[in-house]
Amino acid sequence: MEKENLLMIPGPVPMPERVRYAMLRQAINHRGAEFGAVYADIVRVLRLYFGTTNDLFVLSGSGTAAMEAAIGNFGAGRKIVSLVNGKFGERLGKIGQRYGTVQVLNSEWGTPLDLAGLEKALAGGAELVTFVHNETSTGIRNPAAEIAKMAKKAGALVIMDGITSIGGDEVKVDNWGVDVAFMGSQKCFAAPAGLSAISVSKKAWDMLSERRPYYLDLAAYRKSASSTPMETPYTPAVALFLALREALLIAEAEGVEARIARHRKMADAVRAAVGAWGLPMFPKTDALHAYSNTATAVSVPAGVAEKELRTAVKGLGIEIAGGQDHLKGKIFRIGHMGAVGAPEILAALAATEYGLGKAGWTVKASGVAAAAGKLA
Amino acid sequence: MEKENLLMIPGPVPMPERVRYAMLRQAINHRGAEFGAVYADIVRVLRLYFGTTNDLFVLSGSGTAAMEAAIGNFGAGRKIVSLVNGKFGERLGKIGQRYGTVQVLNSEWGTPLDLAGLEKALAGGAELVTFVHNETSTGIRNPAAEIAKMAKKAGALVIMDGITSIGGDEVKVDNWGVDVAFMGSQKCFAAPAGLSAISVSKKAWDMLSERRPYYLDLAAYRKSASSTPMETPYTPAVALFLALREALLIAEAEGVEARIARHRKMADAVRAAVGAWGLPMFPKTDALHAYSNTATAVSVPAGVAEKELRTAVKGLGIEIAGGQDHLKGKIFRIGHMGAVGAPEILAALAATEYGLGKAGWTVKASGVAAAAGKLA
Repeated sequence: MEKENLLMIPGPVPMPERVRYAMLRQAINHRGAEFGAVYADIVRVLRLYFGTTNDLFVLSGSGTAAMEAAIGNFGAGRKIVSLVNGKFGERLGKIGQRYGTVQVLNSEWGTPLDLAGLEKALAGGAELVTFVHNETSTGIRNPAAEIAKMAKKAGALVIMDGITSIGGDEVKVDNWGVDVAFMGSQKCFAAPAGLSAISVSKKAWDMLSERRPYYLDLAAYRKSASSTPMETPYTPAVALFLALREALLIAEAEGVEARIARHRKMADAVRAAVGAWGLPMFPKTDALHAYSNTATAVSVPAGVAEKELRTAVKGLGIEIAGGQDHLKGKIFRIGHMGAVGAPEILAALAATEYGLGKAGWTVKASGVAAAAGKLA
Repeated sequence: MEKENLLMIPGPVPMPERVRYAMLRQAINHRGAEFGAVYADIVRVLRLYFGTTNDLFVLSGSGTAAMEAAIGNFGAGRKIVSLVNGKFGERLGKIGQRYGTVQVLNSEWGTPLDLAGLEKALAGGAELVTFVHNETSTGIRNPAAEIAKMAKKAGALVIMDGITSIGGDEVKVDNWGVDVAFMGSQKCFAAPAGLSAISVSKKAWDMLSERRPYYLDLAAYRKSASSTPMETPYTPAVALFLALREALLIAEAEGVEARIARHRKMADAVRAAVGAWGLPMFPKTDALHAYSNTATAVSVPAGVAEKELRTAVKGLGIEIAGGQDHLKGKIFRIGHMGAVGAPEILAALAATEYGLGKAGWTVKASGVAAAAGKLA
């Protein structure tokens, strides 16, 4: 049977049929009223999920393009402080190094961010703070509101990677004071990969760099978005816009509160299973840091063959994720974002429970049963 | 009737059903064997159409992203000479200004490039030459082989925009000595917009810049493409890869020579119609410069209302293009690239012939009849 594996990884995630079918359209002119209306729909719904009235643009490039747009447009030549406790925070730091002077505040992956270090860096004149709201590489949620508050007090610009939180967890760009935030299409909104969206505050515009990238030049995006009909400066990935619009109309109908609550329920269910299995969660939380609402990272005890676990799960037609970089073999991760619900969560947990046995771990109790109780 | 207009513009162009249906797939893991095979198929066929054995990568961004990748990876901090006789040449010059020191050699749009100026610039130490092979903004084909030869002799790197020639006209990257060339998915191959591909010579790698962009970092693309299975460094637009692969399998089956000959036939037919109508071609050619094989630009005589022409054509469900920037109202353009053939060309010409009448131009003879003779 040729059927795609059920992707229970931290993105890309399974797409609703309605979203995929939206891509079937014949080519349309991207400088016309129909495309403009598609773009406007996307911006309208994303503003709800970003919690912002700021300018918001869609880029024809995946999440990393949005990361670079944020730093390249506002950080060139500036003093940047980069908070890192996982792979994507690290990437923001690396991008910062291409454009400005970066102080990287490294915490061990999966442990809380170095907020004391941030305080010092801000006192030392850092002009930009970059951080990841939801670090899927480690399953931790970083304290966005607190970081933004500290940065704002010091007059620094706040750049938040919301790629895997926006659409699946509470995000309040305007209330928190986040100047630049961005999302990725293939994550919590369950659209195809290849687009990202970015919001820009008035304060960020005031810091627009002279030497910014070209394809990701947000001033060009602003100019084109203000035309009638709305446009992008360069040819957009029209089919992906059509699909993202469809995914967002689904999200609009579900409602922001309900969508976040559904994600919270799925996260609770997965954590209940992990607890029942007797396995330790990988991230270390504190009063400010919390477990991710969209991906769960689990430590693999000594003697458990993580690769065999995933191979067994894959044999059942389901993919969960391993660890990245130095965490390979040390953790496994289950994504629970997007258009999935109880059926997919239960299937993934049942397969994982089976795989844990194959990998040499005797579960304390049924994780599936514990999860079903939470999902009911 | 809800049906998309027939797009006879210089891209995007109508896509075959098979190409569009390839995007229906459920999400697949982009770090797996299936995606790797898709990427490998794309590279295999594109190498035939580029005429190269060089490294070749697919970027999840449209043509402008490839332009920036070319200049940003190899031109940062360098002396660039930029040949301009249309909108896209101008864009390459603008991107050059973000990265290096650019001498722009401006020719009036639609007139031959300034090759005498190029000679001088090369003697003056220019390290990089940028030019557009096929300038759809003006319907002119620039002499790629000659430019590459001159640059090579002077030891300069040759960057060629082949966005609207590769797949629809003869391109011989290796024979000509082009170091960096790139195409766009929505042009001659009739795939959806949003991808581009770029080839890189050994000499170009030797000039790799330290301060290159991040999302478009070709060294990262090289590293990921050399893994097994082939990968991209950041999340690719998977659905677009699936569609481009399908479009390229169609192009592979058609064959390079046959595909170019088909485009030549269509170009001949459109030019025959323009001649029959008694209208002047817009571009001025010489011994080296020729009319484009994939888009025809026609001058609009005084007293002819170009806007009314296009409105009348659109009323018949077909879109042709006007002029860009200062050429608005002064030219109209017909695209003839991709998966189209006699039916689409004849329909577009019939609609244009009708529109010319509405716009105040009395045609000398039937362009449709002249074209049919060429297409038969």
